[in-house]
Parts: sequence; structure tokens; C-alpha cells
Amino acid sequence: MRGVMLNKPGDVQVVDRPDPVIVEPTDAIIKIAATCVCGSDLWPYRGDDPADHIPMGHEYVGTVTAIGDAVKNVAVGDFVVGSFFASDNTCEICQTGYQSRCVHAHIMGEIGTQAEYARIPLADGTLVATPGQPDPVLIPSLLAASDVLGTGWFAAVAAEAGPGKTVVVVGDGAVGLLGVLAAKQLGAERIIAVSRHPDRQKLALEFGATDIVEERGDDGVAKIKELTGGLGAHSVIEAVGTQESMMQAIRSTRPGGHVGYVGVSHDVDLPGLELFFSGIHLHGGPAPVRRFLPELIDLIWNRTIDPGKVFDLTLPLEEAAEGYKAMDERRATKVLLTV
Amino acid sequence: MRGVMLNKPGDVQVVDRPDPVIVEPTDAIIKIAATCVCGSDLWPYRGDDPADHIPMGHEYVGTVTAIGDAVKNVAVGDFVVGSFFASDNTCEICQTGYQSRCVHAHIMGEIGTQAEYARIPLADGTLVATPGQPDPVLIPSLLAASDVLGTGWFAAVAAEAGPGKTVVVVGDGAVGLLGVLAAKQLGAERIIAVSRHPDRQKLALEFGATDIVEERGDDGVAKIKELTGGLGAHSVIEAVGTQESMMQAIRSTRPGGHVGYVGVSHDVDLPGLELFFSGIHLHGGPAPVRRFLPELIDLIWNRTIDPGKVFDLTLPLEEAAEGYKAMDERRATKVLLTV
Repeated sequence: MRGVMLNKPGDVQVVDRPDPVIVEPTDAIIKIAATCVCGSDLWPYRGDDPADHIPMGHEYVGTVTAIGDAVKNVAVGDFVVGSFFASDNTCEICQTGYQSRCVHAHIMGEIGTQAEYARIPLADGTLVATPGQPDPVLIPSLLAASDVLGTGWFAAVAAEAGPGKTVVVVGDGAVGLLGVLAAKQLGAERIIAVSRHPDRQKLALEFGATDIVEERGDDGVAKIKELTGGLGAHSVIEAVGTQESMMQAIRSTRPGGHVGYVGVSHDVDLPGLELFFSGIHLHGGPAPVRRFLPELIDLIWNRTIDPGKVFDLTLPLEEAAEGYKAMDERRATKVLLTV
Repeated sequence: MRGVMLNKPGDVQVVDRPDPVIVEPTDAIIKIAATCVCGSDLWPYRGDDPADHIPMGHEYVGTVTAIGDAVKNVAVGDFVVGSFFASDNTCEICQTGYQSRCVHAHIMGEIGTQAEYARIPLADGTLVATPGQPDPVLIPSLLAASDVLGTGWFAAVAAEAGPGKTVVVVGDGAVGLLGVLAAKQLGAERIIAVSRHPDRQKLALEFGATDIVEERGDDGVAKIKELTGGLGAHSVIEAVGTQESMMQAIRSTRPGGHVGYVGVSHDVDLPGLELFFSGIHLHGGPAPVRRFLPELIDLIWNRTIDPGKVFDLTLPLEEAAEGYKAMDERRATKVLLTV
């Protein structure tokens, strides 16, 4: 089969890779219908994470083509959505909603779903079948559920976005934009998106943002304080992962408020004393997307939400290199690869 | 009046200080019945925080001797307990239970309650009167409510200690020990106290600990993992404030679990990436003791809890220097000063 390989930073190639086969009785094989490039794929692409001939991709939707003997919840022919972490969904950690930290978790990024097929470990606990074969227009949104929507949703839940709350979203990538959508769905009263890009501002407003703040860092904090009677926001979604964005999120939150952070941390050190006196709640990490998948699929299936709008460039898998380039140069927010 | 002064690190003296007077109409003056030395007083005593002729003390119970014109909730003659932060208890932050970050907060440590009298700003929002004049045997427990009990209680609430939960308590000072008591009252199933000191272990068991772990740092983490099926605890109370204790707390917590941290951070930097992948909830800071005071006074008044047991040395105010020395040398857990 064909699949994306990052040979070294900046060097993306679509190559022949072995067709995946059932290894464990709990595995399924899916024929991927669509996959995409994640903001986190840019870390190794830019050389900020190691990269030496690694298969890429961890987001996927597609059709089950084979199942292991132990698989009960999905069948050959089902159209499925899965999380970027495979999980058994039965262990004590999964049962409390933290499937991304399942005691048997597999990182789908190691499998590489920017490809024609993928082996999905722990298929019963990882995959959720859609109610039927999807209308093709729903595929981008279902694909978004696999990571960016699920991650933005988790961030909004971790930040305790809800009725009566003022929510700030730091980060205007796909996850941040879908954090706006999630906060809106969860009933937030006011949603302040931090963004400098007109296209992203527009999408944020479409997803439910009520205010846009262009300032970053301490200027951004001052602006948020100004908009919230000097107190800071009740809930802040952090969707970048840098020192600046984390501190902006923490400092934008009122005492007793909640930061939900989902940007993968890069060179972040949180100063203990400042955090102590902030009095905030801090929760985040790799999103347990599986927790939210049934609800998110339902909202998409019923056309309540259209998270697929974050894809502003669609390319065939063979042109993956151009997709990475467009995202790296910020010409695209999120690139969908058709397979 | 007489009051404690820290002239420089290690040099505690009881000196004549001006009698406090009503400054604002919202003030009250109290004649202090008992005060105490806090673990956090040891930071400047040991030279880890600046110390140049500072009045000391922020814990207090006593009798109101004067009130400003605007004070409505307490009257002259009332026996009162107050928090180590004065708060209006009416602002938006107070109303959500974060009185230690009240928009009008005053730090009682700047007033110095290791003295015969103290001016209490924002008396209506800060002081809670007991139901009547207390039996003298209750005074140590009421004094504990002023900080160490309220702080341990907040830590247990922040850690979401409760029925079915395994709670770890890192730190066997007065706050940690009262974190054990709080976790027990909140219904925790299992309470693991981390302590190497036989006297403190004994008190922890008396307060409700079910297990004692003597190991610290990574060995302590390994022991907690062993006791919790490899997963870590649901809830961890951190009551020290060092890098080692914070990391021990974070690493002892299962994904999705809660750390409640109340040790004042000293030279702590939390590594972002480890925190990210831990998947824990982190909440803490200066305890909003005022939130809990009515409930804690009630539990003490009804003899349900006896937090005053943490005081293992009682001295007259004039012998404060010996009290600091005993705590510094860990000959005493918590020193009560009678006035």
C-alpha cells in the first residue's frame, strides 16, 4: 500500500509500505477513507521532534476490511471513527474516561494512518461505527472527530466551559477553533478567541466566538482582564503548547477558574510559585477522544455541528508533501488527505 | 502590646508594638486568645524568604474588643475565628469560594497575629463567631481551623477526596496530618500517609490514615504504585511545597486523578511535558479557609473532629523564640502560643 513517510525534517514522501495484517485477535484492519495532517505532525516536520524515516498520521476514518477473532463491536463493512490512541475501553482508567492513558494504550502515530490501510489495535475499545454509511459530505467532520474535534472538546470540558461562563481560547489552529465550537455547544455565554489571522477569526466567529483578541502574551492577558472586569476568564482553553501560550492561558484565568490545556508541551516549565498564587485549576494532556466519540458522531450525523469546516485544503494522499508544506507555511489551517 | 518580631533569620523576639486601632469602618480589633507558629513561618526564619524586622503570625482566635461603624456580622464580646487572608466575602471571587483571592484581600501575615491584639480588616467577611464562648479545651481546635485545618481541608477538597477514593498525603506537618483528617471526614476509602516520623505516623493513623509509606521521591512513588495496582492514587494531597514533594505528588496520581497542593511553592518548576502526559488535575494555592470555616467550627463545636491534637507544644507568647526553635528542629509539629 501507499503511505506517508517523514524521511527527515522537511522531507515528506509517499512510499510503498507493507499492507497491514491482523497481528492480535483484538485487531481490525481498516481501509482509510480520509486522513489528515495534524498540527503536532509539524513538530517533527520542523525538526523540533526527532524524525528519521517515520510513518506519519494518527487521524483516520474508514471501512473495516478485516477483524481478529476476538473483535465483537465492529464488523467488516462498518464505517468507523477511532481515536489517535487505541484503548481497551474496559480498564479502570478507561472506565473513568481517560482512554488516552488506557493501561493497554497504543499510540496510533506509531502505526501511521496517512496511508491506504491501517491496523487498529484493540478495535473493540478504539473504534466507533457510524449509524450507517456516511453521506460523503460528512466525512471531513467525522475525520475531525478522530482528533482535533475530540481534542478541542476535551479542552473545553477540562476548562469547564458551560452556561454563564466566559471562555478564552488561546490558539487558532484547528484544535483551538474546535475548542470554540465545543465551548459554544457546551453553552458558554461568551467566547473570546485569540487570533491574528483574518481567515481563522472568521471561522472562530462562525463556530460561536463572541469576541476576538489579537494580542498575545502579557498584552493578551491585559486585554482579557479588561474584557472580564479585571478578574480574568472562568475557563481558558490552551491549544498551542508553548511557554508563552501556557502562561497566557494561566494568567488569563481568574482565581478558582479552569485551564484546559491540550497543546503538546514543548519546552514548557511552569513556575510553581506563580501557579500556586494563581489559584486556578489545571487539567489537560492527550485528549481521551474515545470518551466523546459517540456524542460527537451523533452531533455530526444530525448536522448539529460541522467541524469539517476546519479543513481548508484537500489533497490526494500522493500530494501529502504539499499538504505539510501548506500547513507549515500557515497557508492552510488543516489539510485533509483523500485516500 | 507585646508581639513577635523576626529581626532577622533565626532571631525571634517578643517586643512592644503599638496597640492596633480601628483604621477603616470595616475593621475589628480582637484580643487574641491563642495563636501559633506556622510551617510557612519557618521559611523566613530559615532565611529562605526575606526577613528584616517583620511582625509574625497569621493564625488567630480571640474576642472582639472593638468594631468599626460598618461592621454588622460580629459584635464586641464575640469569640471569633478568622482566616489568614482577610476577605470581603461578597466579591465575585469570594462568592465562588476563593476568598483567599478576594479582590480586596489582605494578608494577615502583614499584620502579625502572634501578639496580644490584632486589627482584622474586612471583619464581616473574614471573621466567623462561634455559637457561644468556647470551652477552653476547644480553643486549640478552633485555632487550627484558622489555617492548618482549613488548608488541609481545602487540599482534600481540591484533590477530590471522597467515598471510594484512595488518597495519598505527601507531607506530615500539621497541614498534611489535617489533610488526613479531612480526607477521612470526606469519606475516603483508603488514606496513605507519607511519613518517616513515628509520632506523626501515630497521629496520622489516629486521624484516619490506613497505610503509612516511609519512602520519599521516586521510591515513594513506586511504593504508592505498588499499593494501587500500578495505577497510582485517585487523590493526592501535597503539603510541603518543594520540587521533590510536588513531583512525588504528581507521579503518585493516576491519569485523570487529582492533586490538591497547598505547600507554598519554593523553587518549584513543573516540567510541562511530564505534566501533560500525566493527565492529572492540578489545583491548589493559598487555601480559601473562609469558605470552610462555618462547617469546620460546627464539626469542632460538636466534638466530631479534634484537629487541635496537632499542637504538641504549648508556650506562652513571651517564649515564642523557643517555639520557632522547636519547630525548626522538628522537635514539635505545631506550637501553640497562649496570650
